[in-house]
Amino acid sequence: MSTANGSSDAELDKSAGKVRESAKAGLPPGTMLHIGKQRQAPARLMLMEYDAQQFTEEELSSPEACLPFLDAPTVTWLNIAGLNDLDAIAVIGQHLNLHPLLLEDLVDTSQRPKIEDYGTYFFIILKMLDYTVPAEEVEVEQVSLILGKDYVVSFQEDDDDVFDGVRDRIRSGKGRIRTMGADYLAYALIDAVVDNYFHVLERIGEDTEGIEDVLLEESAREVLHVLSHLKREMIAVRRAVWPLRDVLSAILREESPLIQPETRIYLRDVHDHTVQMIDVIESEREGLSSMLDVYLTSVSNRTNEIVKVLTIFSAIFIPLTFLAGVYGMNFQYFPEITWRWGYPLFWALAGVITGLLLIYLRRQRWL
Amino acid sequence: MSTANGSSDAELDKSAGKVRESAKAGLPPGTMLHIGKQRQAPARLMLMEYDAQQFTEEELSSPEACLPFLDAPTVTWLNIAGLNDLDAIAVIGQHLNLHPLLLEDLVDTSQRPKIEDYGTYFFIILKMLDYTVPAEEVEVEQVSLILGKDYVVSFQEDDDDVFDGVRDRIRSGKGRIRTMGADYLAYALIDAVVDNYFHVLERIGEDTEGIEDVLLEESAREVLHVLSHLKREMIAVRRAVWPLRDVLSAILREESPLIQPETRIYLRDVHDHTVQMIDVIESEREGLSSMLDVYLTSVSNRTNEIVKVLTIFSAIFIPLTFLAGVYGMNFQYFPEITWRWGYPLFWALAGVITGLLLIYLRRQRWL
Amino acid sequence: MSTANGSSDAELDKSAGKVRESAKAGLPPGTMLHIGKQRQAPARLMLMEYDAQQFTEEELSSPEACLPFLDAPTVTWLNIAGLNDLDAIAVIGQHLNLHPLLLEDLVDTSQRPKIEDYGTYFFIILKMLDYTVPAEEVEVEQVSLILGKDYVVSFQEDDDDVFDGVRDRIRSGKGRIRTMGADYLAYALIDAVVDNYFHVLERIGEDTEGIEDVLLEESAREVLHVLSHLKREMIAVRRAVWPLRDVLSAILREESPLIQPETRIYLRDVHDHTVQMIDVIESEREGLSSMLDVYLTSVSNRTNEIVKVLTIFSAIFIPLTFLAGVYGMNFQYFPEITWRWGYPLFWALAGVITGLLLIYLRRQRWL
Amino acid sequence: MSTANGSSDAELDKSAGKVRESAKAGLPPGTMLHIGKQRQAPARLMLMEYDAQQFTEEELSSPEACLPFLDAPTVTWLNIAGLNDLDAIAVIGQHLNLHPLLLEDLVDTSQRPKIEDYGTYFFIILKMLDYTVPAEEVEVEQVSLILGKDYVVSFQEDDDDVFDGVRDRIRSGKGRIRTMGADYLAYALIDAVVDNYFHVLERIGEDTEGIEDVLLEESAREVLHVLSHLKREMIAVRRAVWPLRDVLSAILREESPLIQPETRIYLRDVHDHTVQMIDVIESEREGLSSMLDVYLTSVSNRTNEIVKVLTIFSAIFIPLTFLAGVYGMNFQYFPEITWRWGYPLFWALAGVITGLLLIYLRRQRWL
Amino acid sequence: MSTANGSSDAELDKSAGKVRESAKAGLPPGTMLHIGKQRQAPARLMLMEYDAQQFTEEELSSPEACLPFLDAPTVTWLNIAGLNDLDAIAVIGQHLNLHPLLLEDLVDTSQRPKIEDYGTYFFIILKMLDYTVPAEEVEVEQVSLILGKDYVVSFQEDDDDVFDGVRDRIRSGKGRIRTMGADYLAYALIDAVVDNYFHVLERIGEDTEGIEDVLLEESAREVLHVLSHLKREMIAVRRAVWPLRDVLSAILREESPLIQPETRIYLRDVHDHTVQMIDVIESEREGLSSMLDVYLTSVSNRTNEIVKVLTIFSAIFIPLTFLAGVYGMNFQYFPEITWRWGYPLFWALAGVITGLLLIYLRRQRWL
Repeated sequence: MSTANGSSDAELDKSAGKVRESAKAGLPPGTMLHIGKQRQAPARLMLMEYDAQQFTEEELSSPEACLPFLDAPTVTWLNIAGLNDLDAIAVIGQHLNLHPLLLEDLVDTSQRPKIEDYGTYFFIILKMLDYTVPAEEVEVEQVSLILGKDYVVSFQEDDDDVFDGVRDRIRSGKGRIRTMGADYLAYALIDAVVDNYFHVLERIGEDTEGIEDVLLEESAREVLHVLSHLKREMIAVRRAVWPLRDVLSAILREESPLIQPETRIYLRDVHDHTVQMIDVIESEREGLSSMLDVYLTSVSNRTNEIVKVLTIFSAIFIPLTFLAGVYGMNFQYFPEITWRWGYPLFWALAGVITGLLLIYLRRQRWL
Repeated sequence: MSTANGSSDAELDKSAGKVRESAKAGLPPGTMLHIGKQRQAPARLMLMEYDAQQFTEEELSSPEACLPFLDAPTVTWLNIAGLNDLDAIAVIGQHLNLHPLLLEDLVDTSQRPKIEDYGTYFFIILKMLDYTVPAEEVEVEQVSLILGKDYVVSFQEDDDDVFDGVRDRIRSGKGRIRTMGADYLAYALIDAVVDNYFHVLERIGEDTEGIEDVLLEESAREVLHVLSHLKREMIAVRRAVWPLRDVLSAILREESPLIQPETRIYLRDVHDHTVQMIDVIESEREGLSSMLDVYLTSVSNRTNEIVKVLTIFSAIFIPLTFLAGVYGMNFQYFPEITWRWGYPLFWALAGVITGLLLIYLRRQRWL
Repeated sequence: MSTANGSSDAELDKSAGKVRESAKAGLPPGTMLHIGKQRQAPARLMLMEYDAQQFTEEELSSPEACLPFLDAPTVTWLNIAGLNDLDAIAVIGQHLNLHPLLLEDLVDTSQRPKIEDYGTYFFIILKMLDYTVPAEEVEVEQVSLILGKDYVVSFQEDDDDVFDGVRDRIRSGKGRIRTMGADYLAYALIDAVVDNYFHVLERIGEDTEGIEDVLLEESAREVLHVLSHLKREMIAVRRAVWPLRDVLSAILREESPLIQPETRIYLRDVHDHTVQMIDVIESEREGLSSMLDVYLTSVSNRTNEIVKVLTIFSAIFIPLTFLAGVYGMNFQYFPEITWRWGYPLFWALAGVITGLLLIYLRRQRWL
Repeated sequence: MSTANGSSDAELDKSAGKVRESAKAGLPPGTMLHIGKQRQAPARLMLMEYDAQQFTEEELSSPEACLPFLDAPTVTWLNIAGLNDLDAIAVIGQHLNLHPLLLEDLVDTSQRPKIEDYGTYFFIILKMLDYTVPAEEVEVEQVSLILGKDYVVSFQEDDDDVFDGVRDRIRSGKGRIRTMGADYLAYALIDAVVDNYFHVLERIGEDTEGIEDVLLEESAREVLHVLSHLKREMIAVRRAVWPLRDVLSAILREESPLIQPETRIYLRDVHDHTVQMIDVIESEREGLSSMLDVYLTSVSNRTNEIVKVLTIFSAIFIPLTFLAGVYGMNFQYFPEITWRWGYPLFWALAGVITGLLLIYLRRQRWL
Repeated sequence: MSTANGSSDAELDKSAGKVRESAKAGLPPGTMLHIGKQRQAPARLMLMEYDAQQFTEEELSSPEACLPFLDAPTVTWLNIAGLNDLDAIAVIGQHLNLHPLLLEDLVDTSQRPKIEDYGTYFFIILKMLDYTVPAEEVEVEQVSLILGKDYVVSFQEDDDDVFDGVRDRIRSGKGRIRTMGADYLAYALIDAVVDNYFHVLERIGEDTEGIEDVLLEESAREVLHVLSHLKREMIAVRRAVWPLRDVLSAILREESPLIQPETRIYLRDVHDHTVQMIDVIESEREGLSSMLDVYLTSVSNRTNEIVKVLTIFSAIFIPLTFLAGVYGMNFQYFPEITWRWGYPLFWALAGVITGLLLIYLRRQRWL
C-alpha cells in the first residue's frame, strides 16, 4: 500500500521507539503515518459475528478474510489490535470506503476523543486508561470505533483485555447484547472503556488520601514528588474524559438512523458516567491544588517553629556567654575578679538576665 | 431475583464495608449492584396513603404488600430505607415497570444528583447531607425518588428522620399537602432535603468564623488542619448542591403532565434556595481560600519577627563577645591588659559599639 | 394570625438576637417566620398617596387603615419598617392576595436579590448596604418591593433614611415622579438603594488606598487584618450587587403591562449603574488579592534582608571569636603567646580574615 | 439653567478637587452634576462644518452660536472641552432634544464605555487614556459622542490633542473623510481614541520588559513597587478597553439608518483593534502575575542561599569555638594543658572536626 | 504609490529596526504602513500556476507581471515574501480590488489571526511559529492569505521554507492538490502552518520535561529562568493558536461559494488539529504553573532543612560554650576551679546537657 510508505521517511524518535506528530509536517493530508509507540506487529484481527440466534468467533490471518463478514446482515465486530500494520488497515479502509483523513487520524495516537459523522458511518476516537502497577503511572491508549449499519470495527494500539467482558456477554448471550444491533455493541465497547476509568480514578484517589494523612507531619519530604506526580496523572485523565463527554452529547443529539431509540437511553447513561467522573476529577484536582498550598503553609509553619527554638536558645545564652567572656578577661586592674562574692554574684546576675529574657519571651508568646 | 446475584461476585472493599464503583466493570449494563456503605438490612418499607379526606400509615413486611396501594387513585408514598435489599427493590421495579438502568443507578450511591424523564414517571436522585456531631464530618446519603402519576417511591440508604416533618404534615393535615397531588409530595420531600442543607452550611459557617478569630494569633498551629478539613467539606456540599440546581431547573422547564402548574411555584422556590445556597457556598469557599493565604502570610510575618529578634541579639552581642574574647587572650606582651583604666575602657568601648548598633538597627526600623 | 405563630417554636439564636434559616426546617412551605435580626417592633407604616395634582402623607396606626388607599386609582406607596410584625404583614398580604411563599420570603432576610412575576404584581428583593461608622463594617438590610398596578408596598428591616430623597421629591413635586406611575416609583426606590452602594464602595476604596500606601513599609503588621476585613466586605457587597444586575435585566426583558415604556429607559440606567459597580467591585477584588500577594512577597523580602544582616555579622565575628578563643587557651607550651609581636599579629590576622570575608560578601552582592 | 445648580449642593472632595459619584445620592434622576476632576472652565467649543466641497472651522464663544450649524445639511462636528460648564451643555442638550439621563451621564466621568440608541441619535461613551510622562501614570479621560443624522457632538474633559489628526484630515481633505457622512466622522474619532491606546500599552510593555531583566537579580527591591504599579495600570487600561469591545459589537449589530454600510467595515476594523488589544492586555496581565510568583520564588531562593552560608559558618566555627573555650578554662587539675603537644594536638583536633563537617556539608550538597 | 509614503513619517524604533503600532496614530485609516521587523527587501514574488494537466512555476521580477496569471481560469498561487515592499503590494491590491483597510492590516504584523469575508474573496491572517535553534526562542511571523475564485495570494514576512512541502506536492502532482481548486490550496497552506506548530510545541514540551527532572534537586537555581522563559513562550504560542481555532470555525460556518463542499472536510481536520493543540497548550500551561508552585515549596522545604541543621548545632554548642566560658573566668574565689575532679565533672556536665538536648530534639522529630 503506497500511502503507508510515508512512515519510512518520517522522523523517528529512536530513543522512545515512538514516532511523533511533527513527523507528518510536509506530507500531503490523508497520508497514513503511525504516530505513537511501536507496540504490536503484525496486527491481531479478532472477528465476532452474531445475531440473537447464532454466534461465530474467529481470529483472522489476513485483513481480506473479514470482508465477506462485513457485508453480511448479522452484526459484525472486527477488533484490530496494533496500529502500525498500516497495510491491513488500508485494506479495510478501502473496502468500507473510509475517508483518507479518517485513516490518517486512526493511526495517529495523539488525537483527542472526537466523533465524526460520515453519513453512512460514525468515526469515534476514545482514550483507554490503564494504571500500570509497578510504575504507578497512567497509561493512555487510543481506541477508535467505526460504527456502520451492521458492523463495528474497533482499533486498539495493543491487545488489552478491557473488551473481554463484552466478548463474554456476546459468547454467553447474557444481557441484551445479542438481541440488539451494532449501535448497542458500540455502546457496550464505549461503556467498557469508561467503566475502566473508575479503576484509575479510585487508584489515584487512594494515593491522594494516603498523602493527606502525612501532609502535616514533620518528615513529609517525599510528599512533593507524589503531589506533582498525581497532578500530572489527573491532567492526563482529564484530557481523556472531558472531550469524551462532548463526544457523547454529540451522539445523543445526532438524528442519525445508525443510532436506534432504545440505545439512546444507554448512551445517556454513559454520558452521565462521564459527567460524574468529571465531577470527581475536578474535586480531586482542586483538592490536590489545595493540598500543595496546605503543604507549603505547613512547611513555613515548621520553619517558624524551628527558628523560634533557635532564637530562644540564642537570646538566652548569647548574653550569658558574653558575661562569662567578660570575667574571663585578663585585665590587671579588674575589681570584680578579686571580690569575695564575685563568682556567686556572676551566677546571680546570670539568673536575673535569664529570668528577664524568659519573661520577655513569654510576653512574645514564644514559650 | 437473579439480577441481585451480581453483588456476590463483586470486588468488596472489606476494610470499609463498602463496595465501589469499579466493581461494576465488566458486568452488563442494568446489573443491580449496591455501591456504597452496607448500612441497613433488610430494608424498612413505610407506606403512607392519603387524599384530602383519609389517611393510612403502615409498615410493610414484604415489598409485594405495597403493590395494591400503588395502583389505587389516592396519593401513595412508599419510603424504602436500605439499599442493599436488592430483591425488594427489584419487586417494586418490576411492578412499576422501571428501566433496568434506573434500578442500577438507584442502588449505586456514587451517582450525582440528576433527573431523568421516563415519560410515565420521573427519576430523581438527590444527596442528603448530615453533619455528624462527634466526628464533625459531613455525611452524604443518596435519596432517590420515583414520581409517578399518583405515587412517590423514595429510596434512602438509612432510616433517617429528615422526612419526619413531611410525615407529620400528612398525619395532621397541616398545610396544603393533603389537598395536593404526588408532585407536591415530591416537592415536599426535595424541600425537606434542601432545608437540611442549611443546618450543615450553618455548622460549617460557625467553624469558619471560629477559625477567623484565631487566624492571626501566635499559637494557631491547628488552624491548618481545620482549614483543610473545612475545604474538603465545602467541596462535598458543593457536589451535592450544584447539580441539584440544574435538576430543579430541568423540572421547571419540563412540560410534563406529572407536574401541575400550582406546584411549579413551589419548585421555583426550592430552586431559589439552591441558588442562594450556591451563593453562600461560593462565598465561603472563597473566604476559606483567602484565609489560607492570610494564614501563610501571617506565619511568614511571625517568622520575620522572630528572625528580627534573633538578629538584634546576635548583632549586639556577637561583637561584644569577640571583644571580651580579645581581652581574655594570654599574650605576654599585651599592653591594654596592664593599663590602669583598661577594664573601664573596655566597658566604654562596649557601650559605644552597642550604641552605634542600636542606632543602625533603629535606622533599619527593626527596633 | 396563625401563620405567625411559627416564630415562637423556632430555634432562636439568643446570643445574636437572630433567628436563622435552619429554624424553618420541618415547617410547611409558606410558613411566615422572620429570619434575621430582631430590629424594630412594632412595624412603622408610612403611607404616601399622590398624583400630579394632589399629595397625602400619613403614618398609619394599624395595617387595616391602608386598605382603602391601595384600592384608590392614585399612586400609593406604603412603606413598612420592621419585619417581625408578622400580623401586620399578613393583613396586607391577604388584602393584596399575595402568595404564601412570597410572604415567607419577605420576612426571611437571608434571601438573595431576585424578581418574581406574579402576573398582577412583581415581587422584588433588594439588599440595602450601609457602612456603619464606628465599626467600619458593611451592614446589609433586606428591602422588598411589591409593585402592583397603582401601588408600591416596600418592606424594610429598619426605619432608615435611604428613601428620604424620594419622599422629598414626592412632597416637593420636584422631578417627574408625581407625573409618572407606580412603576416609576419602584424605579426611584431601587435607584435610591443602588445610589447608596456608591457610598459604601467609595468608603472601601478609601480604606484600600490607605493600605496601599503602607503595604511595603516595615511596620505594616496590621495590614493583614485590614486586608482580610476588606476582602470580606467586598464579598458582601458583591453578593448584593451581582444578582441585582440580573434582576434588572429581567425587568427590562419583561413584557409586563406593569412597566410602562418611558420607565424602561430609567431602569436601563440603574442597570448600567449595577454593571459599572460590578466593574469596580471586580477591579477592587483583584486589587486586594494582588495586594495580599505583594504583601507576602514584601514580608519575604524583609526577612531576606534581616537574615542577610545576621549572616554578615555572624560570618565576620564567628571566625574572629574563635581566633580570640584560641589565644585565650591556657596551654603551657604555646609559642605564639610568648612572641613579642603576638598581639599585633593577632590583629593583623583578624584584619586579613575580615578583609577576605568582606570581599567574599561583596562578591555575593550582600553588601 | 436650574438642573446645573445641583453641583453647588454636592459633596465636594476638596483635597482632590474632585466631585464623586456618591454626591448624586438623593438627587432626582436626570440631575446634571459634574462628577470628576474640575479640569477646564469655561468650556471651549470648536466647530467644524464640511462636505466634499467646502469646509469651515470656528471657535464659538457661546453654545447658542452652534445651533444653526447643527441644523444645516452639511456634516457638523462640535467639540466641547470642559465638562463643568453645565449651562453650555444644557443649551445644546435642549436644542438636540437629548434625554435628561443622557445629560446626566455625559457629565459623570465615572461612567464605563457604553452605547445607547435613542432612535434619532446614538450616545457613545469612551475612555481616552494618556500616559503622563513625569508621573508615569495612566490618566483616564472620558469622551462622549452624540452621533445624529448629520452631526457629531463630542464632549471631552480637557482640551487634548488626540483629535488633531482627524482635524488635519478634514482641513486637508486627505483620505475619504470629507466625502463621507457623520457616521464616518464618529468612526474616525473613536479610531483616534483607540489608536492612542497602543501608545499606552507600548509604554507599559516597555516597563514590564525592563523589570523582567532585573527580576532575578540580587538587588531587585524596587521590583515590587513597579510590579504592583504596573498591575494597577493594566487594570485601568482593561476597564477602558473591555467594555469598548462590546460597544463596538453593539454598533455593528445595530440596524440603524444612522450607520451607513460603507462605514461598517471601518467600525469592524476598530472592533478588531480592541480585540487585539484585549489579547495583549490579558497576556501582559498574566505575565505580570507570573512575574510576581517568580519574584517571590527568587526571594525565597536567595534567602535559602544566605541561610546556607550562615549555617556553614556556624556549623564549622561553633564547635571549634567551644573547643577553644574548653582549653581556656582555668581548672587547676587540667591534664591536657600541661602536655607538651597539647597545643598542636588542639589544632589537629580542630582540623579533624572541620574535615568531618566539610564532608557532611558536601554530602548535603550545601558546598 | 502615495499611500506608502506614510512610512517615512512614522516613528521608527531604531534600536530594534522595528516600526510599532503606535506609529499609525493620527494617520487616516487605510494608510499602508509596515509595522514589524524590517526583514527582507525588496519582496520576492514566486508564482505557481496549475491545473490537473499543466504546471508553471516562475519568479517574477515585478508585481505587474503576475496580473495576467491572476485573471486566467487555472489556479494561481502568488507568494510574496517581504512586507516592506509596499509598492508591490499596492499594485496587486489595486488589481484585485482589495479594500484599503485590508492592505493596512496585511503589512501590520501585530495583527491577531482573523478571517474577513469581502464577498468575492476571503482575507485570512495566520501566525507562523518557528523555534530558532541557538536562541531557543519562539519566533512569530505573520502570514496572510487572499483566497479568491481561482487564486491564492500569500504574504509572508520572510522567505521561509514552511510552504516547500506544498510546492513539492504541486510540482510532483502527489496527492489531490492539482485536481482541486484554490480553496484546497488555501487549506494546504494553512495546514502547513499548523503542522509546523507541532514542532514548536514538542520542543517546548521537551524543555518542560527536562526541568521536571531537576525541579526538586538542590542545585536547581536556573530552573526559575527556564520556567519563566517557557511560560512566556507558551503565551506566545497560545496567542497564535487560540484565535486560529475561531478563524477555522468561522470558515466552516461560512456559506460562501468560494469554499467547495469537499474541501470542508479538510478544513474540519485542521480545525481539529487546533483544538487538539489548544488542549496540549492548556495542559502544559497548567503544568508549568504547578511546577512553579512545586519549586517554591521545595525551596521552602530546603530552607527548612538548613535552618534545622543550624538550630541543632546552635542548640547543642551554645550552652556548652557558655559553660566553658564560665570555667574560663578569672575570679579569685572560684571553688570549682580548684576541685580535683573539676575538669572531668565539666565534661560530665557537658555530656548530660548534650544528652538532654538530643532527647529534646528527637522529641521534636528534628533528628
